[in-house]
Amino acid sequence: MKCELVFVGTELLLGDILNTNAQYLSKRLAALGFDVLFQCVVGDNPERLKAVLEEGLERSDIIITTGGLGPTKDDLTKEVCAEVFSLPLEMHEESLCRIHDYFKEKNISMPKSNEKQALMPKGSVVFKNTNGTAPGCAMEKDGKRIIILPGPPREMCEMFENCVLPYLSRFSDHVIISHSVRTFGIGESMMAERAGDLLDMQNPTVAPYAKSGEALLRVTAKATTAQEAEKLIAPVVEEIKNRLGSFVYGVDCSGPEENIVALLKEKGLTLATAESCTGGLIGKRITDISGASSVFGCGIISYSNEVKKSVLGVKEELLEKYGAVSEAVAASMALGAVKCSGADLAVSVTGIAGPNSDGTDKPVGLVYIAVTDGSSFRIKKLLTGHSEKSCREYNRTVSASTALNEVRLFILESENNRKDINAFINSF
Amino acid sequence: MKCELVFVGTELLLGDILNTNAQYLSKRLAALGFDVLFQCVVGDNPERLKAVLEEGLERSDIIITTGGLGPTKDDLTKEVCAEVFSLPLEMHEESLCRIHDYFKEKNISMPKSNEKQALMPKGSVVFKNTNGTAPGCAMEKDGKRIIILPGPPREMCEMFENCVLPYLSRFSDHVIISHSVRTFGIGESMMAERAGDLLDMQNPTVAPYAKSGEALLRVTAKATTAQEAEKLIAPVVEEIKNRLGSFVYGVDCSGPEENIVALLKEKGLTLATAESCTGGLIGKRITDISGASSVFGCGIISYSNEVKKSVLGVKEELLEKYGAVSEAVAASMALGAVKCSGADLAVSVTGIAGPNSDGTDKPVGLVYIAVTDGSSFRIKKLLTGHSEKSCREYNRTVSASTALNEVRLFILESENNRKDINAFINSF
Repeated sequence: MKCELVFVGTELLLGDILNTNAQYLSKRLAALGFDVLFQCVVGDNPERLKAVLEEGLERSDIIITTGGLGPTKDDLTKEVCAEVFSLPLEMHEESLCRIHDYFKEKNISMPKSNEKQALMPKGSVVFKNTNGTAPGCAMEKDGKRIIILPGPPREMCEMFENCVLPYLSRFSDHVIISHSVRTFGIGESMMAERAGDLLDMQNPTVAPYAKSGEALLRVTAKATTAQEAEKLIAPVVEEIKNRLGSFVYGVDCSGPEENIVALLKEKGLTLATAESCTGGLIGKRITDISGASSVFGCGIISYSNEVKKSVLGVKEELLEKYGAVSEAVAASMALGAVKCSGADLAVSVTGIAGPNSDGTDKPVGLVYIAVTDGSSFRIKKLLTGHSEKSCREYNRTVSASTALNEVRLFILESENNRKDINAFINSF
Repeated sequence: MKCELVFVGTELLLGDILNTNAQYLSKRLAALGFDVLFQCVVGDNPERLKAVLEEGLERSDIIITTGGLGPTKDDLTKEVCAEVFSLPLEMHEESLCRIHDYFKEKNISMPKSNEKQALMPKGSVVFKNTNGTAPGCAMEKDGKRIIILPGPPREMCEMFENCVLPYLSRFSDHVIISHSVRTFGIGESMMAERAGDLLDMQNPTVAPYAKSGEALLRVTAKATTAQEAEKLIAPVVEEIKNRLGSFVYGVDCSGPEENIVALLKEKGLTLATAESCTGGLIGKRITDISGASSVFGCGIISYSNEVKKSVLGVKEELLEKYGAVSEAVAASMALGAVKCSGADLAVSVTGIAGPNSDGTDKPVGLVYIAVTDGSSFRIKKLLTGHSEKSCREYNRTVSASTALNEVRLFILESENNRKDINAFINSF
């Protein structure tokens, strides 16, 4: 079934808002097995909208629009769609009551202009708006369909999930299900190389994606039922895990922070952070996860050398001899964080986020990360290779992700491989 | 001059990526005075792309595309555009050298497939890619123009600013210039009320925007030169500042963090943070600003009560009697942060970010923020009113922004209004 999306709103053409509806609807429709061939954005202009709709109906079976359902005279999506299908608008009493109730609940008298939102194309299937006043609907003519949805994402998404999905599912004779195997520390090309022949499979398909140092393989199957699709996917996910080993940190989790909070909980461990160049980003990401307080209690943002010394106990001579961005200082910071926090583990990050250098000949993008439990440790030197003007965000993001991954590897690695942190620091 | 945007990429139609290029280009083109009438997304499909281009050229003067300039055989934007204008592709030696150099710098041998990226339509104006391998270009036929740009935002934005803007400026007979007056702590509706008649002006126009607790007024003027536009804007910006007073924290700055780093630098002050519910977000946002190290050296993420006591010196009895989310603890945290960091000022945040409550009857979204210089202080109770399932990010963002604003108000307020922090803490 061919489908296209039409987003109505001059604010989109002016760049005043980011079109998140486009990604949302595309993703959901792809999962339902619909082919989305075009997305189009038009302003609040009835002639241009009409032209786009007529053209779209020639090549596709279903058009879904968002936006232009408000109460003002600029909002004309419904009127134009009804005109294209030659359907008259009729008052939909149930919607009118709902709009009245909406204002009543808020203790506001309903403006007359909102009545127009309850006028619906004759014979259309009306979709209730649980987060606003404008109902949506599906209208049909000669086997072609237009579905109109409100523009605000909160209203659109809920209406899509509650009303449009059930409506659309009858047009889909199959489901598409995806699972993402998430990896860290392996480049996209090496990951693809190890996946090898799996990338040529047809059902499920296996596709690589990469972003800010992370790479994932998405396994997608098409089947008549969800159960069948899952059955096709499961052995492939297992095979990928075998081939990629400890590079894999999770399946379908939202990112390294979700993974590390779950892993710490599972092992009954607490973590502290000592951040220099990431400036609080690691703490922020850990505490993005609700319930992180059971595994994370303390972070030290030691952006200056004074705080590295006074709070984390890094020795002056290490800072002087090796500089703040060094193995010796990273290890000392992590050890200091374990000591001052009483946590089971600590991770430290010290590096040059850029765009400016730290005044030494060390390159922008050089970062040291240490993880310790107070006796043994793990250390990582990272060279992001990014030193251009806009590198700062990238370098900080990758440093924080790598730090979280190092914590994972420290927890999972064999204790036999570990070396003594005090001996290491004293060796400098 | 009429313009439309064509985004090429199956990944956009599948919803795998968010189309941030659409907003970026729309905003920049509107500022240049171009009318963007359509945006369209098509997959990596030459027939469909060709149809979209031919249709667009009938109604618009300029089409700008992004995406599909990569080295693989799927990447066909350049080839299709050249075909539409019947232009042959020729090797562009300068671009070929640049691509060679790009790989050389990274110490990788250049894959043969990348050579194709240096083939450019005959007679086109080639745009250098400083962040990647694919050059862009502008091609022209019979007064119509197609501009092709790479898809990755980092590459596209830099090419647009450095090459496309100068190229396009000659087609614009007027400029549109905007300045944003940013406020904090005043709601959008109260801001609009105070702006009053200014919102009805025609040139410049004044429009209100709101997001995550912040509200801004955008003043936009249209004129034949930038200087004229600035002349129209200046008195209106002044008038807005007068009407909104200390709610205004800056004009055209990127956010409260940029403002606070500049203000601290100007006053020669340093700041420390003591974060509970924001978990490092304030430190992260301050250190988003390059050069923040001259004003920010220390942050304590005291997510647990233990750390509030051991590192920040908050008294056990305050935590027991009033709970972690209280005025007394917020003030103690700030005082502790000044003491342990040696900074001139410290800001603390303690609250319930949600979605889960802290086990007391305090509501999700309750936050206390304190700022102190070690002797006097300022305290703020915030009730975000957001306790729904997805409130966490909102509550943390608003808490961090409010904290930064409180620091600004502390610095700017009269010292006569200040009260003694030790007396305040001892009063509990």
